[in-house]
Amino acid sequence: MPGTALAQEAPEVQAVLDNIWVFIAGCLVFFMQAGFALVEAGLTRAKNVVNIFAKNMADAIIGILAFFATGYALAFSSGNDFFGTDGGSFFMNDLDINALGGSGVINLSHGTFFFFQAVFAATAVTICSGAMAERTKFVSYLIFGVVMCAVIYPVVVHMTWGGGFIANISIGDAVYSDFAGSGVVHMTGGVAALVGAFLVGPRKGKFAEDGTPRAIPGHNVPFAIVGVFILWLGWFGFNPGSELAADNLVTGIALNTILAAAAGGLATTVLIWVKTGKPDIAFIGNGVLAGLVAITGPCGTATPIMSIVIGAVGGIIVVFAVLFFDKIKIDDPVGAISVHGVVGIWGVLSIGIFAKYDDAFLGRDDAGLIYGGGFEQLAVQFLMVLTIIVWVGVASFAVFSALKATLGLRVSEEEEIGGLDIPEHGMAGYTADATA
Amino acid sequence: MPGTALAQEAPEVQAVLDNIWVFIAGCLVFFMQAGFALVEAGLTRAKNVVNIFAKNMADAIIGILAFFATGYALAFSSGNDFFGTDGGSFFMNDLDINALGGSGVINLSHGTFFFFQAVFAATAVTICSGAMAERTKFVSYLIFGVVMCAVIYPVVVHMTWGGGFIANISIGDAVYSDFAGSGVVHMTGGVAALVGAFLVGPRKGKFAEDGTPRAIPGHNVPFAIVGVFILWLGWFGFNPGSELAADNLVTGIALNTILAAAAGGLATTVLIWVKTGKPDIAFIGNGVLAGLVAITGPCGTATPIMSIVIGAVGGIIVVFAVLFFDKIKIDDPVGAISVHGVVGIWGVLSIGIFAKYDDAFLGRDDAGLIYGGGFEQLAVQFLMVLTIIVWVGVASFAVFSALKATLGLRVSEEEEIGGLDIPEHGMAGYTADATA
Amino acid sequence: MPGTALAQEAPEVQAVLDNIWVFIAGCLVFFMQAGFALVEAGLTRAKNVVNIFAKNMADAIIGILAFFATGYALAFSSGNDFFGTDGGSFFMNDLDINALGGSGVINLSHGTFFFFQAVFAATAVTICSGAMAERTKFVSYLIFGVVMCAVIYPVVVHMTWGGGFIANISIGDAVYSDFAGSGVVHMTGGVAALVGAFLVGPRKGKFAEDGTPRAIPGHNVPFAIVGVFILWLGWFGFNPGSELAADNLVTGIALNTILAAAAGGLATTVLIWVKTGKPDIAFIGNGVLAGLVAITGPCGTATPIMSIVIGAVGGIIVVFAVLFFDKIKIDDPVGAISVHGVVGIWGVLSIGIFAKYDDAFLGRDDAGLIYGGGFEQLAVQFLMVLTIIVWVGVASFAVFSALKATLGLRVSEEEEIGGLDIPEHGMAGYTADATA
Repeated sequence: MPGTALAQEAPEVQAVLDNIWVFIAGCLVFFMQAGFALVEAGLTRAKNVVNIFAKNMADAIIGILAFFATGYALAFSSGNDFFGTDGGSFFMNDLDINALGGSGVINLSHGTFFFFQAVFAATAVTICSGAMAERTKFVSYLIFGVVMCAVIYPVVVHMTWGGGFIANISIGDAVYSDFAGSGVVHMTGGVAALVGAFLVGPRKGKFAEDGTPRAIPGHNVPFAIVGVFILWLGWFGFNPGSELAADNLVTGIALNTILAAAAGGLATTVLIWVKTGKPDIAFIGNGVLAGLVAITGPCGTATPIMSIVIGAVGGIIVVFAVLFFDKIKIDDPVGAISVHGVVGIWGVLSIGIFAKYDDAFLGRDDAGLIYGGGFEQLAVQFLMVLTIIVWVGVASFAVFSALKATLGLRVSEEEEIGGLDIPEHGMAGYTADATA
Repeated sequence: MPGTALAQEAPEVQAVLDNIWVFIAGCLVFFMQAGFALVEAGLTRAKNVVNIFAKNMADAIIGILAFFATGYALAFSSGNDFFGTDGGSFFMNDLDINALGGSGVINLSHGTFFFFQAVFAATAVTICSGAMAERTKFVSYLIFGVVMCAVIYPVVVHMTWGGGFIANISIGDAVYSDFAGSGVVHMTGGVAALVGAFLVGPRKGKFAEDGTPRAIPGHNVPFAIVGVFILWLGWFGFNPGSELAADNLVTGIALNTILAAAAGGLATTVLIWVKTGKPDIAFIGNGVLAGLVAITGPCGTATPIMSIVIGAVGGIIVVFAVLFFDKIKIDDPVGAISVHGVVGIWGVLSIGIFAKYDDAFLGRDDAGLIYGGGFEQLAVQFLMVLTIIVWVGVASFAVFSALKATLGLRVSEEEEIGGLDIPEHGMAGYTADATA
Repeated sequence: MPGTALAQEAPEVQAVLDNIWVFIAGCLVFFMQAGFALVEAGLTRAKNVVNIFAKNMADAIIGILAFFATGYALAFSSGNDFFGTDGGSFFMNDLDINALGGSGVINLSHGTFFFFQAVFAATAVTICSGAMAERTKFVSYLIFGVVMCAVIYPVVVHMTWGGGFIANISIGDAVYSDFAGSGVVHMTGGVAALVGAFLVGPRKGKFAEDGTPRAIPGHNVPFAIVGVFILWLGWFGFNPGSELAADNLVTGIALNTILAAAAGGLATTVLIWVKTGKPDIAFIGNGVLAGLVAITGPCGTATPIMSIVIGAVGGIIVVFAVLFFDKIKIDDPVGAISVHGVVGIWGVLSIGIFAKYDDAFLGRDDAGLIYGGGFEQLAVQFLMVLTIIVWVGVASFAVFSALKATLGLRVSEEEEIGGLDIPEHGMAGYTADATA
């Protein structure tokens, strides 16, 4: 994730610029919360819309406070291979939040670095929200969210960007590469989403008795697509901001990002149009998101043409992944497991695959980015994928199972049929005169 | 409001960066207009939604033009204790809009400084819109908006950030502190909103004959919560931008802002859940906003932990304030008086309270920020609150009363029952095939 | 379009800042896609809302990929008067995307400059979408979009900002001026929209047998006005970003932009209120957009007061233009031809008109901006308008006619009456429980 500030003159102006830029990028990432909420709300039913917005608002609230309490310390303090043990920085205690470069990451202060990392943490937990929509108990979801942002996600960050277990794997010259987090963020969210969706079970009516999946149409296409636009915008903070500096590489990363998104959208459009005879807008939106998830890892090391290929493959994978999960009766109302989990794996692996064939793939060696390439690189990326799946899978299975056994994961059948909004939140999302 | 540009080398690059950053922050503040419109629309009824968007669009139009015509000159020209008398700058006449540092505020040009201040002015007037929703005459609202942005708000700014009456109060070492305007902006809006809501009277059906308040549910929860997300995003311009420079303190201010918002949301969630048995999403949204309003004043001087406390107390106050105004039969459909007025007071006073106990509270002495602390500080903050209440209360009472006596403040009973959209604007917000 | 970086010290920090700023401006322009989608959706009927979002999402996808494939090379490669012939840069082939100043435009790298120009291209094509809404075949629209972004629009850019045909016209001292593209972008989109709307024909029911136009109300006013706010925000990237550098002039351009928008909104409000007795919110939104389109060309050379005049005249023109197109039976559901085409012409001409009378109109001579003024300037601006009308008119007529003769431009009568969403995309925009 860290980059190279090219400019050397005027060090303080450069340092301030680094911090201001990464903060602005963080604002764009923060705004993704609204995008996630709109996509999820748009693709589900009106009777659950209050619950969906409540969960997404809670993700932001919990994500930030939990990451402040323990997440930041566990992720970035010096410590062992799995988490920081420097408890002194829980609650950012005794940290100077303002000193330029104080975080130890290029010129970033703790204030800047925390802000940027905390909005990433909020993103990771939000991914689960969509996959478990329309039948999960609010209180259980909240408790999982706290554990996710306080422990599960920070451990993944510590293992990678924090210099821990995964960062220490090397095969030949190859070390892991995941620039902005196809694996660290999206796959982490996607794996937890899969475990959650599996344990909470499918929505009533999603699968016929013989297992045939039925489409449950969302209630508001405009919400879903505005949400996709907001997420696409937010990704211009997510990926270029992960350079963690204002330098000449930032906008090349942005270029890769916008191309992969468009390519993902185009590939899905063509595939779904050929397959079903119609350009399905919900799939197209997910194709754009798949392009974005795919390029999140390679965006700092890919060429523009490679970014188009990586994004397009992401857009194809997401279609088959959605059909696959339907087939194995995992009910994911918004396709979050496919978009973030499966395509997240693709993003991580693509670095290994394309590093082999493309000489223009940059070998940036000053920041833990790839310099080996070839088969060794692919092998390291595989180990990264496995490690994250094992850790997040086991940890989220433990938490969700404990919740299922105690508070329960799922609302009552009556609540599910009538919608979660009135029983869980005491109000409907729309009142009767909404169209009057 | 002004800050300290830490960097000294490369003065012109720094100066340009200061201007670009404050402009970007201003763009985020501008976008808050959409957030206010969505929150207000979401929490009211569909039959008035056109009127609500018309008012909010008018706020932006009027706010900018009125602040250009007279507001900027009254607020920031040299003059007496209450307003600038340097009439030469009405309509920014004869000002060089481009010269770096030309505004006299650090490195900001008049172009930059006006942009940032004008979007603040638009915010101040928008606050009234919500409290007077669903029964106020459009034309009367517009006239009030003009006076607010042309005179009432600029006088408050002149008394404080402009170096006038309030800025000249000192008790011992203590002078007023209100970094980004818990008092200057939000309390000003909130006091005018209270006067307006009082004079226009409650909506039909809000209070039973015996005075019992009835809930009138809003028509679109997604609008309201997307609005809260947009406002939260906008606050990352509002507060950190108020540093008025790109320096190392900007992101610490952002950190305080995001923590207080989350803490406000959490405190409201817990309180309302315990009180009513349900996590009411409208209250939670207002809790986030309360956290943001509360930290607006102290964000430049608080520590992160103090920011959490200040935000959480704001989130608690807002619940009781909403119940209080229901009790005294002030009908505020969106809770604007509570969020901006009451919590705005809390934000101003919190500076005095916490300065006393927290040594880590920064003493920044170069910009009228607090350096005294303790009881004297609290006393100065009290005087600030009183001054704003008296000025804004009297001035807005005069304007609203004059409007009531002439054009009338309120639509006819028939228009109110049928909704303001057709009689006031000639169209419905939604057509019959909205869900077809 | 190019500007003057004032700062000279610390060249690399300045260069990085230039790139970061223009990229951030490009992000705001990108977000305009969501604004266009919301305005168009809000002002049309619910039965076509999926189609509208699909077109706008496709515009972004196609715009970026087509501009990457050929548009960027045609627009900015050295070549003849009409397009770049340096085929080596198709697909940005062999370009170093990261080198500061590598694009040859001030300090911008190819990565930055492409990003900013590609989101402009996406804007140009989106304008057509609104004018042809509710009856155009999806596949035909897509094909036109590809040609527009791959060829038609890039040729306009090459003729102007690329230093081609229009840039080489001079009368006396006067050369063309169109800072951010009232002509290059908006008029181009508007002319294509006019041709498209003419060839596809009016919607069923828009004109009575005797030719009397009937209002077909949009289905969602909140969408339309939130869209206007997003577009207004995006214009703070569109215009100030067109300085293509971070310098002291950026925020003066922003000041001109915000004033013209407000003035356009105010002028439309007054005019429509006087004319019809009601402040029609759809017209007011278009008035704001008209102010923005009008100032897009002059924003780099106008004074603030002139910006208000230019914006206000734009807001008046748009009302009469909408009525005019109704009269000649061109059906433009959202007013795009009036807002972008007619007011775009006004923006270009205003530079000639006001240059004559206003000495404060800046004479910036280092970047092809106006320095002649007076009648000669007006004449050059006229020639620019004519050239764009001829090229875009002929080219888009050819493409749309070919599509009409082959695939067909228009959906079947049955599909139009029932709405395009189910037959074209296989899903409705809203499901039955949308308000339940």
